[in-house]
Amino acid sequence: MHAVTHPTFDHAIAILGGTGDQGLGLALRMAKAGRPVVIGSRQLDRAETAAKEVAAAVSGADVSGCENPQACQRARVVILSVPFEHTAGTLKSIREFLVADQIVVSVGVPLATSIGGRPDQMIDVWQGSCAEWIASLLPADVQVVSAFQNVPAQRLRALDQPVECDVVVSGEKKAREHVMALCDLVPGLRGVDGGRLSNARFVESMTALLIGMSARYRVSSGTGVRFTGLPKAAS
Amino acid sequence: MHAVTHPTFDHAIAILGGTGDQGLGLALRMAKAGRPVVIGSRQLDRAETAAKEVAAAVSGADVSGCENPQACQRARVVILSVPFEHTAGTLKSIREFLVADQIVVSVGVPLATSIGGRPDQMIDVWQGSCAEWIASLLPADVQVVSAFQNVPAQRLRALDQPVECDVVVSGEKKAREHVMALCDLVPGLRGVDGGRLSNARFVESMTALLIGMSARYRVSSGTGVRFTGLPKAAS
Repeated sequence: MHAVTHPTFDHAIAILGGTGDQGLGLALRMAKAGRPVVIGSRQLDRAETAAKEVAAAVSGADVSGCENPQACQRARVVILSVPFEHTAGTLKSIREFLVADQIVVSVGVPLATSIGGRPDQMIDVWQGSCAEWIASLLPADVQVVSAFQNVPAQRLRALDQPVECDVVVSGEKKAREHVMALCDLVPGLRGVDGGRLSNARFVESMTALLIGMSARYRVSSGTGVRFTGLPKAAS
Repeated sequence: MHAVTHPTFDHAIAILGGTGDQGLGLALRMAKAGRPVVIGSRQLDRAETAAKEVAAAVSGADVSGCENPQACQRARVVILSVPFEHTAGTLKSIREFLVADQIVVSVGVPLATSIGGRPDQMIDVWQGSCAEWIASLLPADVQVVSAFQNVPAQRLRALDQPVECDVVVSGEKKAREHVMALCDLVPGLRGVDGGRLSNARFVESMTALLIGMSARYRVSSGTGVRFTGLPKAAS
């Protein structure tokens, strides 16, 4: 365990894989919401390039680029937005840099593409979901939360438009409420209480359905989901 | 195979398990849409009682009650709205009464409650989903389509209100388009192209998520789903 000293640790959001489409979209939205954003990558120069892109798009953004382990030391919430096949490698590189009560957000989905299959098919993960697999690989005092799988990257990146999506957030109560509140910072995004982490399997499998739906309807900006009938209205 | 002679066969909708909450809701909505409705049950008197209930609620309804096998002989579209644990028994009783190109709609979900578990947990079905399991038990020339799992019964039964739900419809193209068109007959219901039948697994697992969500948010009228970004607007 390393000492945590960064002054904005509690407020900042680290996004590992923040150079990818979805990660960069989340970085843009969190920066626009006024949160300090730390973009993590395996390569420092790629992280810094992505950080410059966020800074250019969001005036006044507090954004920087780091290698993944250093990014984890800068923020309580660490969003893991790496391709599914890089999950284990990334966790191995950051594991010893995480501290108790840090929140790791699982965004990955075990799509069959990662082993050469179709994007609307899935790999069966022994633990039940990518999120539960991540939890099995991290210390028990790190909180793993599942979220953001079904928010299309294209909509996140269209900064002038509301996202119009619900985000099902699953995990330990306090940690998931923390992440639900982050969702609510983004126009048109709504955090929905997804209960315990094992429900992540249902949310991850929705991704495969939505990918197929976007292909059938030729929706270039992606298909999102809204839940109807909840007492907390969608904005 | 039995000869089909009933004059409204192509237009009528048979609903097996039409005495249950969800089945009766679908019967009410289909009757209100002007379709002849045949309610099937294992017991004739229960089917007839349910038919009377529909007739009382929908003026001018063309509705009758039959035992399950006879109901199948009266309609091209047979909606199988029986509890998951009665699926095999029901199929066994109707199998020889089905004809080529008849459409059997799978509404069931392999929830763990059917073997004594929690309603937000699922049974792993070898074929991948209840719908694919049904297809494996029926002749190949009967079309199995997956639909209606995630439409709350309470909303179907509130006849004076729009349902406000999308229905993902999966199966062979022509058959699923047939069922999507049925969805669009109901105010606030929208049929969404769910592709091939194997996608039913994603739709069925969504049910477990929605059940948990309704419980957490104490939504007595059930939680539905809308997909955003599709070119075909929700009504």
